[in-house]
Amino acid sequence: MSAKGDLAFIPLGGTGEIGMNMNVYRCDGALLAIDCGIGFGDAANPEVEVMMPDPAWLVARKAQLRALVITHAHEDHIGAIAWTWPLLGCPVYLSPFALAVAKRKLAERGITGARLLPLAPGTRIELAPFTIEAIHVAHSIPEAYALAIRTPHGVVLHTGDFKLDPDPLIGPPTDEAALAALGEEGVLAMVCDSTNALVEGHSGSEADVRRSLAALVRGLSGRVAVTCFATNVARVESVALAAKAAGRRVVMAGRSLRNIVAASAETGYLRKLPPFIEEQEAGYLPDDALLLLCAGSQGEPRSALARLAADSHPHLAVGEDDTVIFSSRVIPGNERAIMKVQDDFARRGVRVMTAEDHAVHVSGHPARDELRRIYRLVKPRFSVPTHGEYRHMAEHAALAEEAGAETIILEDGDVLRLAPGGLKVVDSAEVGRLAVDGERLLALSGAALAARRRMLVNGAVMASLVLDGSGRLLAPPAVSAPGLFDDEREVAALAARLGAAVGDLPGAIRRDDDALREAARGALRRAVNQELHKRPAVEVHLLRVSV
Amino acid sequence: MSAKGDLAFIPLGGTGEIGMNMNVYRCDGALLAIDCGIGFGDAANPEVEVMMPDPAWLVARKAQLRALVITHAHEDHIGAIAWTWPLLGCPVYLSPFALAVAKRKLAERGITGARLLPLAPGTRIELAPFTIEAIHVAHSIPEAYALAIRTPHGVVLHTGDFKLDPDPLIGPPTDEAALAALGEEGVLAMVCDSTNALVEGHSGSEADVRRSLAALVRGLSGRVAVTCFATNVARVESVALAAKAAGRRVVMAGRSLRNIVAASAETGYLRKLPPFIEEQEAGYLPDDALLLLCAGSQGEPRSALARLAADSHPHLAVGEDDTVIFSSRVIPGNERAIMKVQDDFARRGVRVMTAEDHAVHVSGHPARDELRRIYRLVKPRFSVPTHGEYRHMAEHAALAEEAGAETIILEDGDVLRLAPGGLKVVDSAEVGRLAVDGERLLALSGAALAARRRMLVNGAVMASLVLDGSGRLLAPPAVSAPGLFDDEREVAALAARLGAAVGDLPGAIRRDDDALREAARGALRRAVNQELHKRPAVEVHLLRVSV
Repeated sequence: MSAKGDLAFIPLGGTGEIGMNMNVYRCDGALLAIDCGIGFGDAANPEVEVMMPDPAWLVARKAQLRALVITHAHEDHIGAIAWTWPLLGCPVYLSPFALAVAKRKLAERGITGARLLPLAPGTRIELAPFTIEAIHVAHSIPEAYALAIRTPHGVVLHTGDFKLDPDPLIGPPTDEAALAALGEEGVLAMVCDSTNALVEGHSGSEADVRRSLAALVRGLSGRVAVTCFATNVARVESVALAAKAAGRRVVMAGRSLRNIVAASAETGYLRKLPPFIEEQEAGYLPDDALLLLCAGSQGEPRSALARLAADSHPHLAVGEDDTVIFSSRVIPGNERAIMKVQDDFARRGVRVMTAEDHAVHVSGHPARDELRRIYRLVKPRFSVPTHGEYRHMAEHAALAEEAGAETIILEDGDVLRLAPGGLKVVDSAEVGRLAVDGERLLALSGAALAARRRMLVNGAVMASLVLDGSGRLLAPPAVSAPGLFDDEREVAALAARLGAAVGDLPGAIRRDDDALREAARGALRRAVNQELHKRPAVEVHLLRVSV
Repeated sequence: MSAKGDLAFIPLGGTGEIGMNMNVYRCDGALLAIDCGIGFGDAANPEVEVMMPDPAWLVARKAQLRALVITHAHEDHIGAIAWTWPLLGCPVYLSPFALAVAKRKLAERGITGARLLPLAPGTRIELAPFTIEAIHVAHSIPEAYALAIRTPHGVVLHTGDFKLDPDPLIGPPTDEAALAALGEEGVLAMVCDSTNALVEGHSGSEADVRRSLAALVRGLSGRVAVTCFATNVARVESVALAAKAAGRRVVMAGRSLRNIVAASAETGYLRKLPPFIEEQEAGYLPDDALLLLCAGSQGEPRSALARLAADSHPHLAVGEDDTVIFSSRVIPGNERAIMKVQDDFARRGVRVMTAEDHAVHVSGHPARDELRRIYRLVKPRFSVPTHGEYRHMAEHAALAEEAGAETIILEDGDVLRLAPGGLKVVDSAEVGRLAVDGERLLALSGAALAARRRMLVNGAVMASLVLDGSGRLLAPPAVSAPGLFDDEREVAALAARLGAAVGDLPGAIRRDDDALREAARGALRRAVNQELHKRPAVEVHLLRVSV
C-alpha cells in the first residue's frame, strides 16, 4: 500500500456495529489513533463478557503512531484503555473528565507510566503531520469532543458521538460556531456518528428530561428508585435535583455509579448537590424522604438494580406501592435481562416506569434533523458514516448525499484513502476481536474460546490409559466426562467400554502411541455419539510404563 | 393436600413466562393435563437450545391422569409431545391439524403407540369426573380451541391462545355464541391468555394483513422474499395469494415451513393454491416472477432466511433492489439475531420491510378490548390470568377485576383450589425445567449442564498421574486444559508444574489416593488461578501400577 503521500481513514472497530470504536488516520505514513472501546458478549458469544477490537495492526506499526486521542469517556470509546495502552505505549490525549476515568481504569489493572495529556477545546496539538483540535460537542456524558484533524492533505472532522442539544445542562451546547468556522475553512471529509440515522426529527434535550423527572418524582409517594447510565452525569444531577425538590435524600447504589460520581467530583461536577447518603443509612429515613439511584439499567444480573428487584440487596429494599423509573434506553440484546428485572419489580407490587410510557430519557446521538444541520454547517466534500449497524450507516449515507457529500460505507479493516484523488478503499488492515478473559486477552477466533463454545454444547471427555511397551493395560482406563452425564455410573460404563475396545485392538496398534490414541478417541466418540448424539472434544492421555 | 373433593388448577409451566405451557386440572383426585410446550434457550441459558417443563409431578401421578388435551399446534403448547407422551402414556385429544403435527413430531423421534384422538368443536368427551368440550377460537394457527371443562364442582373455561378476529381467513371466527352460552350456563373460573394484556385496543385481523401484503407485493419489482411463522397457515396462504395476484410463483424454503405445509395439505388447507415450485427451479424464473417464502423470521442462524441474507443459500439468492418482508413479530430475546439478518440483507442492497414500517403482521393474541369482550361473554366468577410475564398477568388481573371477576396471579407449581370455597393456593407441585440435549432430557439444575455453564467461563483441566504403590511417578504427568490456552506450550508448562508439585509431596500423601488427588487438584487450581484468574473444573486421574 502507498503509505507515503496519502491521507487515509482506517476503522479497526466500530464500523458496521455499535460499540468497540477504534479508528486510525494515516497521513504520509504517520498514524493517529482515535478511541479504544469495548463491547459486550451476547447470545452469539456467550463465552465472552467483555471484548475489544484486536489492535495488532496498530501495534505492528506503533513506531509510526503519534498518539491515541479519546473523544469521550463512554465504554465503547475508552473502555479498552487499560488493555490497549500497554500495547501501544503512545501519549494519550483526552478531556479532563475522560482523563479521570482513564486513570481509574489503568489503576484497576495496576498499569503505570501512561502519559495521559489533558486536551482542551480550542487549543491545537501538533502531532506532525497531524494537527488536532478538540471541538466541544454535547453528548450524554461530560466533555465529549469532535476532533478537527488538520493535515497537509486537508482537514478531517471526526465527530465522535454528539447531539445538538440546545440545553445539555452540563457543559455548553455543541460548539456550532467552531463547526461553521471549520466548514468555512473547508472540510475534506467528515467521519460522523450514525447511531440515530433511522430516527426522524430531533433527539430532544436533557432539559426536557430534567423537567419531567422533577414533576414525576414530586408526584410520587413511597420509595422511589431511579436507574440511568452512570456516565450521564447531567442525568444523575437531574435525578438528584428531582429528589431535592421532592424532599428526598439520594442513596447511590452500584460501583459504576460511585466511580463516575467520584470522577465527576474530581473534575468539578455534581458539586452543588446535597451529599448522597450511604446505603446503610437508608433504613433510617421514611420512604417518602428517600430516592435510590441505582446502577443496572441494562438488567445486569449482579447490579444493584437487579438485586433490588430480586429483593436480595443487602441494604436496600422496595415493595408494594413503591416506584422504579428506568431513565435509560434498552441496548439491543439486553431486552430479556431488562424484562426480567422489570418483572421482578412488578411481581412485588413495585410500579415500573420507562421511557416507553414517560418522558424520562433522550438519546445522546443526533437524529436526522441534527445530522442535516451538521452537514449544512460543516459542508464536507466526503462523508464517512461510522458508529452504527449497516442500516444506520446506509441511511446516514443517503442523507449525506442529499446534503451534497460524496459518501462510502466501510467495513472494519478497510483502508480508505481520502486524498489524493477521490474516496477509494486501497488496502485492508487485519482486524479481529479479543475477549477480556480474567487477566488476559484471548482471540475470539482462538483455540481456547472455540473449545469453550464446543464444550458448552457437547461437553468434554478425557480418558487416561496406562500401558506397558507391548500395549497391555496396566490399570483400568480412567474416564471423566464433564458436561455429559448427571449420573457418575454412566461415566463408569463409558470407561468400561473403552477398556474393552482397547483390549480388542490388535497388538500392532496398541504398541503405536498415535494409532492407539486415535483408536481410543474414536471408540469414545462413537460411544458418546451413539448414546447421546453428541460430539464432545475427546482427549486421551497415553502413559507408557516400562515394567 | 386434600386431593379428594376439590377442583384445582395447577400450572406446571407457562405461568409467569411466555412459552412452555403445561397445565393440570385436578378434580376429586383425577387429573387432566392441558398442553405440553417447549421454550428456547437465551443468553441466560446458553447451554440450552430447547427446554420443556419437567413433568415429574404429573408422571408420579399418571395413574390418576385421564388424558392430555392439546389446545393448538404452536410449539409452546405441543412442542414437547414426543418427549412428554412417552412419560405419561395417556390418551391425547387434539384437533385434526394438531394431530397431523403431533404425528410428525412423534415419528421424528420414532415414538409409536401414542393414542391420538381427534377432538372436534361442539362434541363432549367424557373423562369422568371431567367432561371436556372444544370451542373453536381464532388464533394465528388453524384449529385452535378453548376448552370448556365441566366438573361436579363447576365449569372452567380454559381459553388457550385466542383472539377475536372477525375474519381469520382460515376457519371461522371465535365461536362467541358458544362462549356466551357457556356464560349463561355459568362459569366458575376462566383461565385466560395474558400475552397482549398490555396492548390497548384490538389485535387487528388477518384479513387486513392479506390486503396490505397483496398491495405491497404487487407494487414491488425484483425478487421478493417473505418470512412468517410457518404455523400461521392463513398468513402463508395470504403470501401465496399475494404472489399469485402479482404473477409470481412461490418457492418455499425451510424445513419448518415444509412440515407445516404438508400437515396443512393433509388436513385440507392451502389446497386451492398454485403448486409451490422447488428451490432448484427458482433460477429459471425471471426475478419479477418469483416470491421466496422463507422460514427464519426470528433470525435463526441456520434458517433459510439467514442463509439467504448471508448469500450462502445453496439454491436461492437476493441482491440489489430486491425486497425482503418480515411478516412476523420479534420474540423477545431474538432482537440481536433478527437485526443481524436484516443487516446482512441491507449490506447487499436488499430492501427490508417489517411490521414497524408496513402493515404486514397482526398478533394472534387478544388485546385489551378483546379481553373485555370475552369477560362480558363468559362472565366468570374467578379469573386466572396465564400465559404471560408477570406484568402481563397483573394487567390482565386488573382488567378482569374491572369486569367483575375475582382474580389471583399464580407461579408455576401453585396448586390453586377453585372449589369448594374461594380461590386459594392450597399446595405446591414440584416444577422444574428439562433441556432437550441431543436424544435425551437433562435437568437444567443437574450436574451435566452446570458443568457446561462452568466450562463456558472457566474451561476445564484434566491431569493423569501414573504412580507405583510408594507414590513414585512412573511417567511424566499428562495434562489437558480445553478452553484455557491458545498455546499448547502453556499446557506443557502446567504439566511440568504439576510434576514438580507432586514430587515435593511427602511420601505419606503420595501413597494415599484421596490425599494425593486432592493435593494435585489444589496445585492445578492454584496454578491456573494465579496465572489466569480462572476457576476451572479440575479432574485428576490417579492410576496406580504395581511394578
